[in-house]
Amino acid sequence: MNRRTIGILHPGDMGVAVAVTARNAGHTVYWASEGRSAQTRARATAAGLLDAGSIAGICEGCEVLVSVCPPEFAGEMARAVASLGFRGLYLDLNAVSPRRSVRIGRDLEERGIRFVDGSIIGLPAKQRGETWIYLCGPHAEEAAACFGQGPLEVEVLEGEIGKASALKMVFAANTKGMAALRAAVLGAARELGVFDDLERQWARSGTPMARAVESVGHVAPKAWRFVAEMREISETFESTGMPGDFHRAAEEIFARLAPFRGVREIRLEEVLEKLAARAATKSDS
Amino acid sequence: MNRRTIGILHPGDMGVAVAVTARNAGHTVYWASEGRSAQTRARATAAGLLDAGSIAGICEGCEVLVSVCPPEFAGEMARAVASLGFRGLYLDLNAVSPRRSVRIGRDLEERGIRFVDGSIIGLPAKQRGETWIYLCGPHAEEAAACFGQGPLEVEVLEGEIGKASALKMVFAANTKGMAALRAAVLGAARELGVFDDLERQWARSGTPMARAVESVGHVAPKAWRFVAEMREISETFESTGMPGDFHRAAEEIFARLAPFRGVREIRLEEVLEKLAARAATKSDS
Repeated sequence: MNRRTIGILHPGDMGVAVAVTARNAGHTVYWASEGRSAQTRARATAAGLLDAGSIAGICEGCEVLVSVCPPEFAGEMARAVASLGFRGLYLDLNAVSPRRSVRIGRDLEERGIRFVDGSIIGLPAKQRGETWIYLCGPHAEEAAACFGQGPLEVEVLEGEIGKASALKMVFAANTKGMAALRAAVLGAARELGVFDDLERQWARSGTPMARAVESVGHVAPKAWRFVAEMREISETFESTGMPGDFHRAAEEIFARLAPFRGVREIRLEEVLEKLAARAATKSDS
Repeated sequence: MNRRTIGILHPGDMGVAVAVTARNAGHTVYWASEGRSAQTRARATAAGLLDAGSIAGICEGCEVLVSVCPPEFAGEMARAVASLGFRGLYLDLNAVSPRRSVRIGRDLEERGIRFVDGSIIGLPAKQRGETWIYLCGPHAEEAAACFGQGPLEVEVLEGEIGKASALKMVFAANTKGMAALRAAVLGAARELGVFDDLERQWARSGTPMARAVESVGHVAPKAWRFVAEMREISETFESTGMPGDFHRAAEEIFARLAPFRGVREIRLEEVLEKLAARAATKSDS
């Protein structure tokens, strides 16, 4: 087996799951501690990642870089490593539109960097069969060899650069779009004074309110991360001729829920107040 | 029991279910054949409704009128019966925004017509416990006495005019919004060339593609009826401060599917082509 040096940018929960999947193939995995939090350091150290110090250090020391970051930073990250002289294999696993992935890839390839379009579907898993890394493009097989047997699964998609991003976009369009719509329905029901009536009608038609409330409570602490992703999905939908408005509305809902970042044990009433409060602020301005 | 004369405008499938529920309370139910199709006549006759001839005839002969029509005609219908001199009890069961219901009600009350805000949730049922007529406002109990024991259930909601419409809006916002989003996701997946990949990923995450395809096939023949309803929902959401864009997108999706009106046995490929074809036409113009 070809043991490689792989850099992970950055080891959040998902980045660590990706890094561990790379370590499980026998590769050496680095991260860069410069400017990162103590929490990130603890997570990286616990996962057995080596510290390359800075992004410059990771670019110099690694043959392969894997970008796992919020979509709004994907382009910036790619430009940074290119300008720092990295010339190896670059995997972008972020939730960006296929068009953006194509643009990032073209820019990197012009600088002599081999680009792989990728995406991740699922939560940061600890066991196999739950979460998939999708890879595509001319260097996808080389990229797939960077990963071992779990915890994440790896699959190469046929077709040009953008397919892995496209799959992520349509998958997330469904799950996150539905979650945002559900939150908006609960918010509207409360404002209209028919929340209890909706609960009774849903019980009659087999849609338990408890499940909707649980879904909203589950999504609220992560909503801040979804805002930019909804923009990518809107752009993707419009590029196919489908309406972008579903996910523009979802972006608005997640922006209103962003203050719940990291909060555990959220009561529904707090969520509904936040949805309504933002609305009030907006109509005041 | 007080036997009343009730006019139903108009006996489509849902109108007939409402009319039968009124007949089951021992009331005499009329319809107006003028300008209606042979199919409507057959349906009304089979349900035991009496023909009052025209709208003028029904206004003259009935103490109670029940409006069951597409939401875009709800206002027109109310104005018509008011100008024809009807002065009894008027039930608007249509899928309109609470604000529109309040406006219709105010106009009718000014003309001496007792107005009841209502809505129907469910399909045109043949047996009890499946579909609910909701009624509200000062005359809701009088209206409820117009209906018997099924096939539709009847419930009076507490609160002012608009509550029954509001409940319909939030319920339909959820089911029809989700159905439209699902169709758009399938359309985008096809345009992006990742339909099969999405099917595989959905199988992995417990969301069978077959169920999504079935939902789209189920909704397509009825989509034409949902276009104006989505506008009512957008307005309702915006009146509460929630984003109206979810249902503006849904309106667009249903408008694209409108050509499937009355078509049975729709293949998914036809639906996806229609979604994409409209998109192409739009970008050409």
